[in-house]
Amino acid sequence: MKCFASDNYSGIHPDILKAIVEANADHEISYGDDTYTQRAKKLFQDKLGNVEVLFVFNGTGANIVSLKCCTLPFETIVCAETAHILTDECGAVFQNIGCSLMPVHTPDGKLTPELISPVLVHKGNVHSAQPKVISISQTTEVGTLYSIDELKALCDFAHQNDMYVHVDGARISNAVAALGKDLKQATIDCGVDIMSFGGTKNGMMMGEAVLIFNDELKANARFYQKQSLQLYSKNRFIAAQFLALLKNDLWLKMATHSNEMATLLAKKMQKIPEVQITFPVQANAVFAIIPERVVEPLRQKFRFYTWDYQTNELRWMCSFDTKPEEIDEFADTLKSLLANV
Amino acid sequence: MKCFASDNYSGIHPDILKAIVEANADHEISYGDDTYTQRAKKLFQDKLGNVEVLFVFNGTGANIVSLKCCTLPFETIVCAETAHILTDECGAVFQNIGCSLMPVHTPDGKLTPELISPVLVHKGNVHSAQPKVISISQTTEVGTLYSIDELKALCDFAHQNDMYVHVDGARISNAVAALGKDLKQATIDCGVDIMSFGGTKNGMMMGEAVLIFNDELKANARFYQKQSLQLYSKNRFIAAQFLALLKNDLWLKMATHSNEMATLLAKKMQKIPEVQITFPVQANAVFAIIPERVVEPLRQKFRFYTWDYQTNELRWMCSFDTKPEEIDEFADTLKSLLANV
Amino acid sequence: MKCFASDNYSGIHPDILKAIVEANADHEISYGDDTYTQRAKKLFQDKLGNVEVLFVFNGTGANIVSLKCCTLPFETIVCAETAHILTDECGAVFQNIGCSLMPVHTPDGKLTPELISPVLVHKGNVHSAQPKVISISQTTEVGTLYSIDELKALCDFAHQNDMYVHVDGARISNAVAALGKDLKQATIDCGVDIMSFGGTKNGMMMGEAVLIFNDELKANARFYQKQSLQLYSKNRFIAAQFLALLKNDLWLKMATHSNEMATLLAKKMQKIPEVQITFPVQANAVFAIIPERVVEPLRQKFRFYTWDYQTNELRWMCSFDTKPEEIDEFADTLKSLLANV
Amino acid sequence: MKCFASDNYSGIHPDILKAIVEANADHEISYGDDTYTQRAKKLFQDKLGNVEVLFVFNGTGANIVSLKCCTLPFETIVCAETAHILTDECGAVFQNIGCSLMPVHTPDGKLTPELISPVLVHKGNVHSAQPKVISISQTTEVGTLYSIDELKALCDFAHQNDMYVHVDGARISNAVAALGKDLKQATIDCGVDIMSFGGTKNGMMMGEAVLIFNDELKANARFYQKQSLQLYSKNRFIAAQFLALLKNDLWLKMATHSNEMATLLAKKMQKIPEVQITFPVQANAVFAIIPERVVEPLRQKFRFYTWDYQTNELRWMCSFDTKPEEIDEFADTLKSLLANV
Repeated sequence: MKCFASDNYSGIHPDILKAIVEANADHEISYGDDTYTQRAKKLFQDKLGNVEVLFVFNGTGANIVSLKCCTLPFETIVCAETAHILTDECGAVFQNIGCSLMPVHTPDGKLTPELISPVLVHKGNVHSAQPKVISISQTTEVGTLYSIDELKALCDFAHQNDMYVHVDGARISNAVAALGKDLKQATIDCGVDIMSFGGTKNGMMMGEAVLIFNDELKANARFYQKQSLQLYSKNRFIAAQFLALLKNDLWLKMATHSNEMATLLAKKMQKIPEVQITFPVQANAVFAIIPERVVEPLRQKFRFYTWDYQTNELRWMCSFDTKPEEIDEFADTLKSLLANV
Repeated sequence: MKCFASDNYSGIHPDILKAIVEANADHEISYGDDTYTQRAKKLFQDKLGNVEVLFVFNGTGANIVSLKCCTLPFETIVCAETAHILTDECGAVFQNIGCSLMPVHTPDGKLTPELISPVLVHKGNVHSAQPKVISISQTTEVGTLYSIDELKALCDFAHQNDMYVHVDGARISNAVAALGKDLKQATIDCGVDIMSFGGTKNGMMMGEAVLIFNDELKANARFYQKQSLQLYSKNRFIAAQFLALLKNDLWLKMATHSNEMATLLAKKMQKIPEVQITFPVQANAVFAIIPERVVEPLRQKFRFYTWDYQTNELRWMCSFDTKPEEIDEFADTLKSLLANV
Repeated sequence: MKCFASDNYSGIHPDILKAIVEANADHEISYGDDTYTQRAKKLFQDKLGNVEVLFVFNGTGANIVSLKCCTLPFETIVCAETAHILTDECGAVFQNIGCSLMPVHTPDGKLTPELISPVLVHKGNVHSAQPKVISISQTTEVGTLYSIDELKALCDFAHQNDMYVHVDGARISNAVAALGKDLKQATIDCGVDIMSFGGTKNGMMMGEAVLIFNDELKANARFYQKQSLQLYSKNRFIAAQFLALLKNDLWLKMATHSNEMATLLAKKMQKIPEVQITFPVQANAVFAIIPERVVEPLRQKFRFYTWDYQTNELRWMCSFDTKPEEIDEFADTLKSLLANV
Repeated sequence: MKCFASDNYSGIHPDILKAIVEANADHEISYGDDTYTQRAKKLFQDKLGNVEVLFVFNGTGANIVSLKCCTLPFETIVCAETAHILTDECGAVFQNIGCSLMPVHTPDGKLTPELISPVLVHKGNVHSAQPKVISISQTTEVGTLYSIDELKALCDFAHQNDMYVHVDGARISNAVAALGKDLKQATIDCGVDIMSFGGTKNGMMMGEAVLIFNDELKANARFYQKQSLQLYSKNRFIAAQFLALLKNDLWLKMATHSNEMATLLAKKMQKIPEVQITFPVQANAVFAIIPERVVEPLRQKFRFYTWDYQTNELRWMCSFDTKPEEIDEFADTLKSLLANV
């Protein structure tokens, strides 16, 4: 099976799997006091400066740990109404942090100071949960990309309002690849306070890194990690994967490839008149509406998700291992179905 | 000071105060095992049949206890985007229950099956918090009223979707008065599962009753009450107030009066061309937009709240002790300001 | 019914009830911005200096608000294994704060640095919840009293270990009366960081005050109060009670009386050979073991609670309105039962 | 480095690592709908009958998911005062479930009906959190083992009191090996309701299985898994490990070996007069007190943990890859230190 369902349908990049195998020698101190973990943290610090690095199991775990570092019980987290933390984590934020999310409508998955301003009107009012964090996904849940200037404007706005900026970076690699900047320029230099650096969706077996830039958020982070079930006993096996991921910019090469595949897919789709692409294709996702009659026949051959059941909008994700010929086959199949169904 | 800020600016109805004074004799068993509490519960049961009754301190407490009875940690509560539980309780639901709220946009403060249907699309999907309760305010936060038919339709819809209906009845007395039905017809007969019957905003010193109609929700209710800080040791002093409130339909008389005062206020306002009434006046609240230049001058003489800072929409509440002459004075003052400012 | 079950079986002191009646005039701003509230806060500040004062509904509410001010999610609260917050609040601390309690065995209801030291051994260890608060009851749940020196030693120990001291002061009036000091000497001067000042068990209809001495704990307190369901809309009616309670040291006179009644009761009991008093009688409670055969016959005449079902240890509480002749009658009844049953 | 610190210092058994490598082919459906997951579940069901199986990341995750399935917010979990969920998970139970733990003192790490009975005295009392689960570790945290009869007695007692039995089975393999029974006889046949089957401490890279025997606990389990951050997107890589673990009883062979190594270690230690073994050695752990002067010199050569800082009690764990010659070397080193330090 090859498919366009999600970048977590793919497996492990061979270099990363090799790193796991090689890390399997002898005993190592558990819970992150091993040498692999120290070296992987060092690699992030070499790229980003004085950053606290925590390795966690998965994206939801990374978000929970990050947001716990940023919030007190009476505070609230502003996010896009499409945010993964709101729609796809079964209420984990509410249960595990107890803080509310304040969803903001956005036409393209991106938040702006203008969109957020109205929800800040009750700051200081004891009857209202207090906005303390702006949480964004980069790339967004609809495959769009914050530009460097947009990120900077949002961070400046947050800091002016005594708020933090959290980036759900499950696909930050795709964002950095698309921006054509380095990781530092695309994150801490814009003013981001805390973020996750996703591994699972970019060729790792599992694992994400929580990167904490703002010194105020560092002190208690390890306790939140442990309490949030995200402190892995045999942590060397996540760390070893990150060592391979960061080596020779493998992360960036894989993300660049999956972005290119999405661009290729979009290009082929744009040539089919019955296909309406619904969001700018800026990373590794293509959102589109196709005639309803061909949706299920197409899905029988290539797995993918329906994004919006009301409009029949579909999401097609490309992965580090998507091949151009799969895209050709997908386009051909769709064209054939359109002609014959 | 007399004012139109809120029905909780008023004091205690004399009959209710008298009941407190009279209950202050001798020792009584604490935590609700006293005779006053038993008699007050009985009064509700006489009106409503087989209902479990819990007395609590305040409206937020009533909502928390009610919603705890209805939800498991992975479930979510559908409510209007204007709901008190969402906007005015400093995130209490999230912190104290851990469940999320799923806000729905509504033009008039009222939810309908049509408005709710789209948010039920992810029922059964393990990635999404599961909708289990429809929580409404009756009267609504914008002073509108669900009709009996609307309530029935909503309850039927909820039950068809394996959900409960919770009514935040901080102003249920105003609703019942406006509907011209009795309490039973306006609640359990429509299919409501659990609700609060507000006392504080209708002439009591403090106190609300949680009324549980659905047998499935009764078993653990007393534990949730205690755990939610809502089990009052000297409970006779809330119960005595309810005895006075329910006697000779005092609750209904007071609510009828405050509704009439709002109708009178609206009538006078409609005669002033610069005043735009923004919601149907169906109970004891009037929402209106007036020229910005007179807002603060008017507020200096009569306290009231701004409902929407973006549109300068104001809220004027009438209370059990609002007098017609205060409304006259209010209208005259506004007219004078409009002429002179 | 007069009884020795609990000081919350009694009613309202007449002066306090009068204050409620007198406060029932006109409209007042809600949620604590009224003049009564401001005056009551001022009275506390006159006694205690720069203290933040929050009025709440009940003792559990006071404890929750106080402990929320002191803790982050990974921290834990050290308390006696008999603490009310652990045994009598249906898990409210765990549910509403999410922090754990670390119970410590104590022979007389009192914590000491020596008893607490062993549980601090894992400070800094990421696998362990971090002790941050020492919570004590003054007077204790078994009717004993921390001396000024004991309090100071505990507060010094707490601060040396980067911890706060919280006092559950549901019966702080009895403690202050017993210590023969003023409120300031018995609290902030000892180093207490945050505490409740109980009203309900000392002649008020309802209401407690959270007193915050430590500046670090003040900033977010009002949000925690609101979120914990403890912000009363018609707050003037709690404030008016505190005005009466604090006036002419009514609180101290009532507490002195109930302490004296317990001393009298203990004296009479000590003369009965079959009665074994189990804790020093230092405030308004007497704990004793009596022959099992007379427990239920005695309870049929005077209500009281069994403290320990394994040993048949009983608790007899005196109240502001306990009369000497009731104690005579109680002792006579017990003697008669012992002779005849 | 080889050591006796913990069975999570060891790496991955070669057969299990091979299974990971082999599972890395092609795309697979995410979140557990893949074929590996289905096959691994089937293997458990073949052994255990009608069991619901959830795969999770780690032991704390397994405990949280299991306990969420068993509890409502007002309920409490009875556990040994040494329980991992109480002492080693940074308060995760309290934060993520909100239920309290009720620790019971036990001389040997094991709970019995007699030890638990006293804490059930407040069942039904609204002021007390309600005991609903007995949570045990098998093997216990001090290396002891519940016999089949002890397990049955505990489960019978729990069910008579309307409670569930949860087994923290991080080391259930060692228990089953020591009991000489099969997995079914040692768990569901004794009456266990829900448990974890540990993988990480027995040669897996990571992963535990939550096994749900009691039908009442199955319905919501997948939502609790997701909400507790324990639903792994690329789940095939945990499932593949379990396939290898269960194949040809590899799990039992590894556990038998580590148990034998602990027996060997204990035997050698018993011959050294200065060593006092403090708990029966029934699985893969040895607890002992040795003269304080040799503790740190010994630790410099073989890593291990101090279990009790007050008594200098040490814990030595054996692992699937512990070698007899390492135990020889350990014993020789200790003897040499005792002679020379």
